[in-house]
Amino acid sequence: MDVLIAGFGVVGQGIAEVIRDKQELFVKRFGERVRIVGAFDTCSLEVDPSGLDPTSLLERKLATGRVGTRPAASDVVKLLQETEYDLLLEVTPTNIIDGEPGYTHIRTALAAGRDVVTSNKGPLALRFHELTELAARNRVQLRFEASVGGAMPIINLSRELLMGENIISIRGILNGTCNFILHRMKEERLSFDFALREAQELGYAETDPSYDIDGVDSACKLAILANAIFDRDVTYSDVLRTGIRGINEEAIALAAEQKKVIRLIGEVSEDKLEVSPRMVPIGHPLSTGGTFNIAQLLTDLAGDITVVGRGAGKMETASALLSDMLAILKDEEARRLAK
Amino acid sequence: MDVLIAGFGVVGQGIAEVIRDKQELFVKRFGERVRIVGAFDTCSLEVDPSGLDPTSLLERKLATGRVGTRPAASDVVKLLQETEYDLLLEVTPTNIIDGEPGYTHIRTALAAGRDVVTSNKGPLALRFHELTELAARNRVQLRFEASVGGAMPIINLSRELLMGENIISIRGILNGTCNFILHRMKEERLSFDFALREAQELGYAETDPSYDIDGVDSACKLAILANAIFDRDVTYSDVLRTGIRGINEEAIALAAEQKKVIRLIGEVSEDKLEVSPRMVPIGHPLSTGGTFNIAQLLTDLAGDITVVGRGAGKMETASALLSDMLAILKDEEARRLAK
Repeated sequence: MDVLIAGFGVVGQGIAEVIRDKQELFVKRFGERVRIVGAFDTCSLEVDPSGLDPTSLLERKLATGRVGTRPAASDVVKLLQETEYDLLLEVTPTNIIDGEPGYTHIRTALAAGRDVVTSNKGPLALRFHELTELAARNRVQLRFEASVGGAMPIINLSRELLMGENIISIRGILNGTCNFILHRMKEERLSFDFALREAQELGYAETDPSYDIDGVDSACKLAILANAIFDRDVTYSDVLRTGIRGINEEAIALAAEQKKVIRLIGEVSEDKLEVSPRMVPIGHPLSTGGTFNIAQLLTDLAGDITVVGRGAGKMETASALLSDMLAILKDEEARRLAK
Repeated sequence: MDVLIAGFGVVGQGIAEVIRDKQELFVKRFGERVRIVGAFDTCSLEVDPSGLDPTSLLERKLATGRVGTRPAASDVVKLLQETEYDLLLEVTPTNIIDGEPGYTHIRTALAAGRDVVTSNKGPLALRFHELTELAARNRVQLRFEASVGGAMPIINLSRELLMGENIISIRGILNGTCNFILHRMKEERLSFDFALREAQELGYAETDPSYDIDGVDSACKLAILANAIFDRDVTYSDVLRTGIRGINEEAIALAAEQKKVIRLIGEVSEDKLEVSPRMVPIGHPLSTGGTFNIAQLLTDLAGDITVVGRGAGKMETASALLSDMLAILKDEEARRLAK
């Protein structure tokens, strides 16, 4: 399997490390190597049909800030159409205004008959059905476990392992930064501003924290779940959204009196699509603290199934990308074996 | 897909209902019906190669206590060898002394070239590798999601979605009855005996509760996880086991002072295999109350992944059996499509 990596920030570097370190698994399980035949970032490009050395890419990025020795492609569409590769790993940053450049990368690769695995929320929160239909028409796969909840395997769990269930609703904590802030406010009786500053100092929240604390990030993920699991046709702006700026110490204390905690909960069902702070009984799976992401599925047969995982981080996101790559390798193996 | 159901207690009746109610899914997703071509319980048998009506089986069982109109087969091995079916659903009760009658059912079906899906812990906690090797030799599948944690999808999650991870350890709450008792002792300051009686009155614990509270049930499930996920070769008696009889109100109160709760935790890794009561910080995923089952996987890339589900119950167990049936249908579809 030959892969092209679009974007070489934290996530791109993570998946390059994983491709380097899991060769034994690829060979042992599927009898083939996974080669990186190209990689690009904003200002550089490296391509080699015989395979690039992941360590060299990582070292160059670290030393020079660039993954490649060549300047960035003047025409990235042409690059994605004319380079030889099997799979595009689209790991450029999320842009929720127009989904670019991820949208163009994904669309071009799918139209060129390539499988795509992505962690990029923008294109999926904005133009989900257009992209999945394009993939179906071209008989290729578009997989995106890494776009929601990092290492928490919510997409593939819902669509594959729970294929037989009627999933009635999903409620979850989809943003670890908000969960950290709410947890610290309760446990240490901190003010919102103090807990936010702590989250920023620990690197959990950006200097401009609004993407997290106003619920935009959660809303993007919820829109993806709505599209992918409930077959709805929504974008992130369809999500009814309230963030956690308004949560003060009194609200936290009042919840505690009732043996409850406040959590920023996203909920999606056939007729619901909402992110808002809610009270959760202590001991309930959704009361979990820390920076975890959590999703609780309500299904017809299994009842409640909850999954908890690390919602962000280099290797956590790479782990989700890897699981999608392996699913594609497995499907190809099944096809090969049957012939 | 033609199925034969061995055992028609609560779980057998649950899967018969599910097969009846999910026909639309089978046809829509795989273009074929799932037919029950045979079913038997301790004293009766019903076989029809053209398919039995699930509702009739369920009604007869309810009215007469027997699933079939014919007496039980005098030679069940011959029945399993000579009846035409694709899949054996082995859902007789767990027996941890010798695994019978499940062991003979499963072994015979696999040797006859049939796939097997089971909820029966006994054969898997006692003779795991013999059975999986027999399945491999005969190029058929032996699947057992329902044997551990009811609707909690721990086996397929670990072996399929997390195929790329190195799973370092699994820690979990594998018995809902114990969790209910420990949760009630803490929340309502009940004595162990009182909480146990409450669990019995609610139908969570048997009249002889030792299978649950002495950790035998948890140890069986842990042995299955050790065999299936860590490729170890153990039986349930290899598990270092302490139950919860010794947990008193003082222990619970002492834990609470440290913001902790006591939970019966099973842990398996390459060199650990133990069920024992442990202190867990409040807010940690493993501190969850109620009758849930929980498993927390520690992996090399994803870090911690936790999954929570209902550990027992008719439809919950049927849900896990269904997920294994669908996985087999999906593999067969892939094989068909590639030809």
